[in-house]
This record gives sequence, structure tokens and C-alpha cells, in this order.
Amino acid sequence: MRPSGRTPDQLREVTITRNYTKHAEGSVLVAFGDTKVICNATVEENVPRFLKGAGKGWVTAEYGMLPRSTGERMAREASRGKQGGRTLEIQRLIGRSLRAAVDLTKLGERTIYVDCDVIQADGGTRTASITGAMVAVIDALQTLQQKKLLATDPLLHFVAAVSVGVYQGVPVLDLDYAEDSNAQTDMNVVMNEEGGLIEVQGTAEDTAFTRQEMNQMLDLAEAGIQQLIACQRDALAGVFMP
Amino acid sequence: MRPSGRTPDQLREVTITRNYTKHAEGSVLVAFGDTKVICNATVEENVPRFLKGAGKGWVTAEYGMLPRSTGERMAREASRGKQGGRTLEIQRLIGRSLRAAVDLTKLGERTIYVDCDVIQADGGTRTASITGAMVAVIDALQTLQQKKLLATDPLLHFVAAVSVGVYQGVPVLDLDYAEDSNAQTDMNVVMNEEGGLIEVQGTAEDTAFTRQEMNQMLDLAEAGIQQLIACQRDALAGVFMP
Amino acid sequence: MRPSGRTPDQLREVTITRNYTKHAEGSVLVAFGDTKVICNATVEENVPRFLKGAGKGWVTAEYGMLPRSTGERMAREASRGKQGGRTLEIQRLIGRSLRAAVDLTKLGERTIYVDCDVIQADGGTRTASITGAMVAVIDALQTLQQKKLLATDPLLHFVAAVSVGVYQGVPVLDLDYAEDSNAQTDMNVVMNEEGGLIEVQGTAEDTAFTRQEMNQMLDLAEAGIQQLIACQRDALAGVFMP
Amino acid sequence: MRPSGRTPDQLREVTITRNYTKHAEGSVLVAFGDTKVICNATVEENVPRFLKGAGKGWVTAEYGMLPRSTGERMAREASRGKQGGRTLEIQRLIGRSLRAAVDLTKLGERTIYVDCDVIQADGGTRTASITGAMVAVIDALQTLQQKKLLATDPLLHFVAAVSVGVYQGVPVLDLDYAEDSNAQTDMNVVMNEEGGLIEVQGTAEDTAFTRQEMNQMLDLAEAGIQQLIACQRDALAGVFMP
Amino acid sequence: MRPSGRTPDQLREVTITRNYTKHAEGSVLVAFGDTKVICNATVEENVPRFLKGAGKGWVTAEYGMLPRSTGERMAREASRGKQGGRTLEIQRLIGRSLRAAVDLTKLGERTIYVDCDVIQADGGTRTASITGAMVAVIDALQTLQQKKLLATDPLLHFVAAVSVGVYQGVPVLDLDYAEDSNAQTDMNVVMNEEGGLIEVQGTAEDTAFTRQEMNQMLDLAEAGIQQLIACQRDALAGVFMP
Amino acid sequence: MRPSGRTPDQLREVTITRNYTKHAEGSVLVAFGDTKVICNATVEENVPRFLKGAGKGWVTAEYGMLPRSTGERMAREASRGKQGGRTLEIQRLIGRSLRAAVDLTKLGERTIYVDCDVIQADGGTRTASITGAMVAVIDALQTLQQKKLLATDPLLHFVAAVSVGVYQGVPVLDLDYAEDSNAQTDMNVVMNEEGGLIEVQGTAEDTAFTRQEMNQMLDLAEAGIQQLIACQRDALAGVFMP
Repeated sequence: MRPSGRTPDQLREVTITRNYTKHAEGSVLVAFGDTKVICNATVEENVPRFLKGAGKGWVTAEYGMLPRSTGERMAREASRGKQGGRTLEIQRLIGRSLRAAVDLTKLGERTIYVDCDVIQADGGTRTASITGAMVAVIDALQTLQQKKLLATDPLLHFVAAVSVGVYQGVPVLDLDYAEDSNAQTDMNVVMNEEGGLIEVQGTAEDTAFTRQEMNQMLDLAEAGIQQLIACQRDALAGVFMP
Repeated sequence: MRPSGRTPDQLREVTITRNYTKHAEGSVLVAFGDTKVICNATVEENVPRFLKGAGKGWVTAEYGMLPRSTGERMAREASRGKQGGRTLEIQRLIGRSLRAAVDLTKLGERTIYVDCDVIQADGGTRTASITGAMVAVIDALQTLQQKKLLATDPLLHFVAAVSVGVYQGVPVLDLDYAEDSNAQTDMNVVMNEEGGLIEVQGTAEDTAFTRQEMNQMLDLAEAGIQQLIACQRDALAGVFMP
Repeated sequence: MRPSGRTPDQLREVTITRNYTKHAEGSVLVAFGDTKVICNATVEENVPRFLKGAGKGWVTAEYGMLPRSTGERMAREASRGKQGGRTLEIQRLIGRSLRAAVDLTKLGERTIYVDCDVIQADGGTRTASITGAMVAVIDALQTLQQKKLLATDPLLHFVAAVSVGVYQGVPVLDLDYAEDSNAQTDMNVVMNEEGGLIEVQGTAEDTAFTRQEMNQMLDLAEAGIQQLIACQRDALAGVFMP
Repeated sequence: MRPSGRTPDQLREVTITRNYTKHAEGSVLVAFGDTKVICNATVEENVPRFLKGAGKGWVTAEYGMLPRSTGERMAREASRGKQGGRTLEIQRLIGRSLRAAVDLTKLGERTIYVDCDVIQADGGTRTASITGAMVAVIDALQTLQQKKLLATDPLLHFVAAVSVGVYQGVPVLDLDYAEDSNAQTDMNVVMNEEGGLIEVQGTAEDTAFTRQEMNQMLDLAEAGIQQLIACQRDALAGVFMP
Repeated sequence: MRPSGRTPDQLREVTITRNYTKHAEGSVLVAFGDTKVICNATVEENVPRFLKGAGKGWVTAEYGMLPRSTGERMAREASRGKQGGRTLEIQRLIGRSLRAAVDLTKLGERTIYVDCDVIQADGGTRTASITGAMVAVIDALQTLQQKKLLATDPLLHFVAAVSVGVYQGVPVLDLDYAEDSNAQTDMNVVMNEEGGLIEVQGTAEDTAFTRQEMNQMLDLAEAGIQQLIACQRDALAGVFMP
Repeated sequence: MRPSGRTPDQLREVTITRNYTKHAEGSVLVAFGDTKVICNATVEENVPRFLKGAGKGWVTAEYGMLPRSTGERMAREASRGKQGGRTLEIQRLIGRSLRAAVDLTKLGERTIYVDCDVIQADGGTRTASITGAMVAVIDALQTLQQKKLLATDPLLHFVAAVSVGVYQGVPVLDLDYAEDSNAQTDMNVVMNEEGGLIEVQGTAEDTAFTRQEMNQMLDLAEAGIQQLIACQRDALAGVFMP
């Protein structure tokens, strides 16, 4: 059985709170159970050097954890003087996932910076970040549209992410820390609302996994992501409906 | 008149929420109006090298701002690879202020790390941090006492902090960003509950200030800090009363 | 058709040259077509701090590219003062993949450092690195056995890696740079000789990919990795045969 | 009694040597007793990015200590790869203090860099730095005027700084290291020649201080700073008299 | 006797392999015995800031060692976050030596970056680097001429380098590691084909050296460098003959 | 003729002031004309890790320039976050030169740190540093002997350094900045009092130099260094005479 008592295909309680802080163009607090992440989307009227003059925009992400978001305090990356490999890996993943949701040409020569800061960690911080950041990005795009800065909506489709894994021999959805730290296999899946795969990152933690297990995990992920996209749409109800 | 409509001697609404996150020994969300800071206190059973074997403990602080806690997005310090001078200055101030509240010998050979992370900034982040962190430290000391790790309570007295300044020629208490960015003088004051001064940092932003203005500002600060300590005691009601 | 004229399921020519440099306990030059990587395995009689006293060893990897291994010169990471996110991501992947091949308890309290340095890049440097480094690690383990430092062979099974992708709508094996830079989807797969999956990292570059495409890619990868493991065994012929 | 035998309101011997090195537009060796600091002012015909096109100039400072300016050798900051928090705090203070002495609009689009390098430390290095740097800045402004680069003199008024503290229960002026390292309270005060306060930074080292002690310390500082400004004027005699 | 059995005036076997990698404008693998260095020359159509608009070009070098190019693994400089003093010293030497071979005005406003990466070290890596890089630079200049980008050949003369030293009291040429690590004196000499001295860097390792020993070492170096330049010309035979 | 009016074999005026600052075990201000360097020698009772338990000591050096020691202000290395290649090269040279003067076994398990900080530069800062630091080291050794911490004097012999070069076709001694920046050849020579060579570093700046010029420069250096050692002995008169 799962430590949380959930069934194998059951998500944790998911909440998406919009307008969480007041300055950002899009600001979301996302909770996957006890995992809580602030996702702020900022619009800047410039693009990275490699896109200068290319007539299109960019979406990029940064990720951080508060030092005591975890069971033991981690050293603050700003104080250590560099971001660790795990951080860089996660923020690259978040950026790629969100770019898959946005038509960069329609965005025009501007950049959306997404900051995902974990204030409490209990497994699945990267998938919660992607899922929450998607809503923050949509709010930022709405802001641009309200300011009449966009001719057409650059949103291509909703994107969400969830972790799956094999825990005590059973494929399960949305692992919390108790499961994650003991899973045989851990996989993060990012999909769009049409069921297209954006990212699949599976890692054998202890023993290798089979094609069959992989397929079971992907089935769980697919169902979970549809639920997550429903949560995203609920959070945005009344505001936006492409 | 003050942009917020407050009287010169009026604090913003102050809220202190304990147990804000679940992992830390003390975890507080403090709000001074729209300024919101997460203050987490972590206890570790070790001391910095310079105290090894000295039979006493240490309290230290780190401070950070989420990149979009401000009106314009600031670069993430972890990504820039170093903490700026302002950050270092503030975290040194928080650490000194909290050490003035704790008997380090009674604490024993352990360290309390205080992490103050600003999630929304509207002026006064350092004074909110000190005021909130005081409560987080007290909760952490309580945790140690409940675990029977301390023979006696190391808390010496409550400490709180507030900003004062001269705005449009008038000394005012607890400046918000609209005032702070236009003040002639800005002063941060840290005091204990007996009215003793711990830190006074006054800066002429535009024109020099007089001894008379300084005294008026200190009067405002003294009254404000007594109210803040009352808020701290309220937040801790039923839990702790030395 | 593929730019190289290969069939969709055809690997590039693979060569694995052992004893490439003279100092390392295991030293391999691996070539996947024009992609060439030096993989050196070093044995040190110590373990990282988090394993001190745990009675087991560690395998870790570092990855680098010579500045002009690529079509345009890249800045030297040593000179820029930090390793980029891509580098950290790749070296973490190589390390995890090789640890899946070694029984760390049988290795004892020692570390195998694997250095993968790309001298010429033409796509697939990370999969070539893993495949070549596996042989370097086996040579290093052999060195330890010849010195009578190991009671039993820590090798669990051979591990190899290959990239697959969807290029012009067709799933293909072992992408070179011309394909990689234009692929719709790019996936790196690490497997062991029993066909167990160690890592799967698939990324939609342009459009999302389907479950069917994913399965086609995994079929290609599985066949390719069996051929790569045959190459590894050939290179080690006469030396080692568990 | 004070270790040096001074009365509580007595400064150490102060000397200000102009033209100490030959390259800088203003170069001063300032001594407060055994504390000796080289203060060099450099004029550059550019401004920081945030002032580009604003039609005004900037004054900024950097501070350093020779590794063996102190009783025990400190690590060289250039070698450690970063400036410490204390250094950044001090150089920010010096910069703010000097900007209060200069009309930045009259300075035009140029920057005065002030480098304060401590060659021998015996307490009060930051206040000696400010006091000496003021003279170096005035010499640099004179250089600009002699070159006919300034229409009017940007000097607003002289600024000087001194430390005060409570040592063995007695408020004292201009603490040397023997006092500073044992003081209950340490306060740095920056004032201009009209008696206006520029900066007040008071810190309780051991026990909190009272409003009365604060006032006594400010009285001492005020008298001390008038003497320091007289020293500055003496050093500049015959050269400049606004 | 020399550990290698060579006579005092005997070079190790020298091989210079051109077109070693496929991307660079000039790519050489140079071997001085077991010392092997990849020297890649890259042409970029820009110049460092200090040469902007000066109507001339630049030649610069970077040097690195693969972590396990040596008997014991060295930490990777990219991972440590900075290049060590020895690395910087060597790459400055390589750059100066190659600039002495090229007429920078004839090169025009472009830069040749030379990357010297040691894949196996056995003494003399810096002299091998210079000798090999000379050929890579010539190939890069040829590339420019074939593209009709140069009006005249910027090559002034061939330059090569060799180490000499005093080993067991006897001046010897081209020290390998066994000699180098036990030499009394170690000297690196860079000369051009006319016998002009470009660089002489002699260091007493154990005891001081005499003018007589210095002259004997320079005689050895002069003869050795003539042989090295013959090797360079052989490698370039049929391609280039100024 | 030389810009300074000196004859080709004439040193600048050399002064060596001992006890320049009060904290260091040896503290010297050395001036070669307008080049002025503070050389402080610190004794610490420990050795670098690679010498732990080896029964011998170490001498090492660090070098820095005040930002405005030069005609144009240089960026402060502590602020830039790293020491440049020139700095590292010079401090390595100073360290090697001084180690040649000291019997490290007689020094015992302690380290002498030499800090050479240039307060005014006019050419020849590294040779002035070595010459001045030698005296600071001797004073530090004297301090150790007076404290009865050394059984025998570790000083082997005096060491001094001077630059020579070819300026307008004429070999000259002790180049100042006006000459140095226009010299065809620049050579730094370190010798001991017996005339033994410790370091020779010659660089062709513009055109290659001949063996004959090299010999003329070495003759000049030899005579100059004997005069510098006489200055060192004068400065130490009455104090020390091995």
C-alpha cells in the first residue's frame, strides 16, 4: 500500500491559487499535497541575444528551493555561489515544457521568465512547477492581451506534468517523498492536452525497468495529466477559454 | 499625507502566522502590510569553526528575495553566482539582532540558522524579517525544550524591528515602498522589549537629518516596536510565556 | 532519407579502442561515426563524504567538450569559470548509467571517476560516452582484480546507450548532428544487456510525440543497444568474459 | 581609563597627507593614530548603466585591507574570489557618505571611484576612510576644475566620520582596536560641516544601549567630526576654500 | 644516463599529425614521445575589445589538460571553477610565442584562437603545444588564403619550442617527466627559424645555475629547435612553403 | 638616451624601509624609483596540505596592485572575483625566488606568507617585490630566532631581482614604465649573492633577441643584482649578518 493510503492511480490533492503575489504578470501557488511551489511569470520586452532580430519570443525558467523547504536544511545556492546540477536540470526541463505550450512567433520579441520557488517539498517539485507555471504563463499572456500587445493568443495548448514510478513493485502515480525516496523507478512525464508527449524522463533508481512497466507508468501519467489540466482549467474558469 | 492614508505613527497591518511550512523547527510567515517574508528557523547540532569547543552556540541568518517579489524582476542571486552587498548587509543585521535575544551559552553547542525569504516586497523587508524571525527562533527554542535538549530557556527577551523615516518633512513609522523610495531619511531600529537599543541604522537619502528629527524617529520606533512585540506575544499565546 | 544514407535502424560505424592513453586504469577512445570521445576511468581509494563508513563505493562521471570539438568554437568552461547546465545534466546521466552496471558494495570503499572528453562532436556524444565509459570502467575493475584488491567482480552487467529520434516523420536510430539538429523528437536510451531500461529521456523538439512513436523509438534503441554491447564485448575479447 | 590614556572626548592624532601617490586625481594617506588608509580618487568619463543619459554623475567607493594590515593575517579577498560581507557593507557606506558631499548634477556625466586601502588597521578604518577620501575627492574635483571641465564646483560641503562607543560603561570617541574589540556599543557617525547627520550606525555588541547613551555618543561624535573637518581644511589650506 | 637511454642532445620521437579533427581551421595532434597534445586553431571574424578599430588581428591561446592525462588524476578546472596559475601562465606563453610568428596587421581584424589540450602528459607539454600549434596556425592561415580573405601571407617565420635542463649535472634536451621531476634546472626556450630568441624561461629547481650551464642549455635548445622546425616543415610538405 | 637620463647600467634610486607596518613579522617598503611596494612577511605555524608531516616548511607569496597604482585605474581583483593571469604568474615567481633563499628543512613545519602590494607602479614591480620581500623574510626569520623557535638560521643566501631589456637597440638595466612599454625585449633576472641564477624570464616584445643581446642583458643584471644585495645588507645593517 502507498504510505499516504492513496490508490495507485490517485493524485494528491491539487490546488492552484492564482494572483498569489501582487507584482508578477502571472503568479500562482501550486500545491500537489504538501509540495508547494510559487510560480511567478514575468514579461520583459527583450529577448536573449541568440534571438535578437529573429521576430520571435522566448520562454525560460528558473527554479529554486528555499533552504528549509526540505526535511534537512540545504545550503542556499546564492550563498554557495552556484546553482547545482539538479537545479539546472530542472529549470531547463521547465523551460522546454512551457515553450512547447507557446507559439513563440505570436509572442513577439519578448521573454517570459518563469520563477518556480519551492517553499515546501514533499516529492514532485518539478512536475508541480510545470503544472503551476503553465497557469502563470497563461495569466501573463492574458495580461499582454488585455494591454493589446498581442494580435493573437500565443497559447498552443495546455501542458501539465506528473511523476510516476514503480514503488514496491507497483506502478503508482504522483509520488510523494516517502515513495520517491524508495522507488525502484522514477519517471517524469510532460504532456499536452491532446495527449502528445513533451518530455519523458525515466530513471531506474535501483533495478532496471521493463517496457511493460514503462507502458503502465505512461498510462498512469496520461490519466493523471488529464486531471491536472482539468485543475488548471478550473483555476482559470471565467478568465480564459481558448 | 501618507500614500496609504495612515497617520505618521501608525504601523501597517501586521500578521504573524506560525507553522507556515512543515519541516522547519520554527516557521513563520510575517506580513507588514503587503511585505511578506517566510522566516524559517533550523536547529543544527554543530557550531561554526570559530566556536568549536567554546561551549556556546550561534544564531545566524540568511536573506533572499524571490526574483519577482519586487515590481520589476531582479536577477536571481543563485544564478548570478553571488549575493549582493545589500543582501549580505541585511543578513548580517538580522543575525546580530537575533543573537541579542538569545543567551548563546544556554543554547549549547548548536546553531540556529534563520532563513528569511521575501515572497512579496513593499518596503521594510529587513525589519519584517527580524520581527518574524524572532518568533521562528522562539518556536525553535521551544522545540529544543520539548525534546529536553535544553536545561534552561536561552531566550533573553523579545526583539523586534521597524523602519522610520522622514517623508515630505514629517517623521513617519513603518514606511511602505511608496514612502521609502521618496524618503529624505530612512532609519531601521531594532530594540528589545525593555526598550534597549540593539541596532540603529539611519541614512540620509537626500538631505542630512537633524538630531531633533533623529529623536522624533526614535520615539516613533520605540512605540512601534512595543506594538510589534505585542503582536509577537499574541502569535505565541498559549504556547510560551517567559 | 537520412543525410548519411543509413537505413532507419542502422548505427553509425562504432569503434572502441582500449588503452588509448597510458596513465588511466581504464582508457577508451570511442567513436560513433565522427563523434569521438576519450573515456578515462580512474580508481581512487576514497569515497565521497556522504558514503564515508558505509562500506560501499561510488562511480561518478565528468564530461567536457574540447572548445573546437564542434562546428563553431565554444567557450572553454574552465575559462568561463563554470560548467553549463547541459554539461552537468550529461555528466549526471553518465554517472547514474554506470552505477547501474556496478555492485557498489562489491567495489568496496573506493571511487571510480570517469572522465568523458569529447574531441570531435557529430551528435550523440552522451550515448557514445556511456558506451565507451562502460568499457573503461570494466578495464578499471580488471586492474583492481589483477591487483587482488577485489574479492569478487563488481560488474553486474554491460550497459550501453544510444539516441533515437523522429526525423522527417520517420523513427531513426543513432542520430548524427545533421539529423539531431532537425529532429522533431530526440530520445536517449540507456539499457543493460538483459534489455532492462536504465534511463529514457525523450524530448519533443518541435512537435509532441505519440505513444506509438515512442514505442517505435524504443524498439530501435533496444536493437541498437544489443549491437553496441556486442561491440563492447568484441573490444574486450580475450580479456574478460563474465 | 582608556588603554591609550586618552580622555573620553579625545581623538587620536590625525594626519592627512595629500598627493600620496602620483597617478590618482586625488591621493591621500590618512592616519587616525595607527590606523592608516590610502584613499585614491579616480575620475572616469563615464557613468554606471543606470545613470546613462541622466545628465548627472556618480561617486562610488571600494574598500580593501592588505592581508597583513591586521594582527593576524587575513586571507586576500582577490585570492578567495570574493569580497566579504563586511567589505561590501563598508564600501557601500563610504560611497553613500561621499555622494552626500557632492552635487552629482554639477559633476556631469562622470564617475569618481574612490579606493580606500587599509595598510595598517587599529580600529576605525571605515571612518578614517571616509574622512581621508573626502579630501581625495576634493582634490579630484579641483583637478577637474583646473582642466576647465566643470562649470561650477560640485562640492556641497565637507563630510567626515568618526566612531564612538561605550567602553567600560563610558561613552568614548574614536575607538582604537583595544577598545573596539571590547566595547559594549559601537557606533559610526557621518556628518557634514553644518552638523547634519548623514549616517548613524549603532550596534549593541554585548548589551543594549539606552537613548541617553546614544545621545552622549552623538554629542561626542559631533564635536569629533568638527575637529576632523578642521584637519581636512588644514590639509587643503591654500588650495581650496569654498 | 637519461632514463630513456637518449643522448643529452637527443629529442624524443616527434610526430605532427595534421587534420586531426574535422571542424577546426587547423587541427594538429603533436607528440613529443609520450606527451600528446591536440592543437586546434579557430579563426573568428572579430578582435578583442582593446584592438577594435586598430586595423590588426590577434592570436591567443588556451591550454588545458584532461584530468587523467597525468599519473594521478587532477581535478577538472571547469569543475573547480577556475583555471590554475600554471594553466594561465602556460597559455599566456603559448599566445605570446605564436604572435611572434604572425604579422598581425596582415592578418586583418580577426582572431586566431588556439586550443592546446593535453591528452597524455610526459613532460614538455608547453613546448609541444607551441610546436604543434604553430602548424595548426599555419593551416588556419592557409584556409584564410584559400578563401581569398588575405591579401598576403601573415606568417613571419616558423616558431618552435623545446625544454632543456640540467639533469644529474648534465645539460640535456627535451626532458621527459622522469627527468623533469628530478632536474636541478628547467628551461623552456622558444625560437624562430632564424635562430632569434622569442622566450627564455629558466628556473632553478634545486640549486642555482651558472652562466656556463645556461649557455650549454641554450646551445642544446638551438639545435633542438632547428630539428623541430624541420619536423614542422615535413608535416606541411606539399602544402605550404614560404 | 634613456627617458630618465640614466646610463644603460644605472639602477634607479633604491630604498628599503624596514618595519613599515607594525603587525607583520617582517614589513618592508621597497622603492625602485617611483615603483613602491609594501612587502609583508607573516609566519604561521602550519604548512600546506602537501607538506603535512614532511618535517619541512614553506615560503609562498601573494601579489596585488592597488587599483590606482597605475596611470589608469585597473579593476580591483577582489571585486572582479578572481586574480588575473599576470598576478598569478608574478606571485608564483616571487614564491619560487624566495624559496631558493631559505632552507625549508631548517624552517620547520611553518609557512612564511609574503604579501607584495604595489602602491605605486612605474615598471619593475615584480623585481622590486622580490628584492624587498627578501628583507621582509629575513626579518621574519630573525623574529623566529629571537623567539628561540629555530635551532639554526634557515637563510641560505640573499636573493635579489632586476629587470633588463633592450631599449632602442641598447641593453639597459632596471627599466621604468616609459622604457618597459617600448622595449624590444624585456627580461627579469633573479640571482643569489654568489652569482647563481635562480630565474631568467626573457620575452621578445617586438623582435626576437640574439644570444649576444641576452649575454649583455645578463651582464647588466648580474652587476645590478650585486648592488641590490648591497642595498639589502645596508637596510639590515646592525641587525643581521650571516
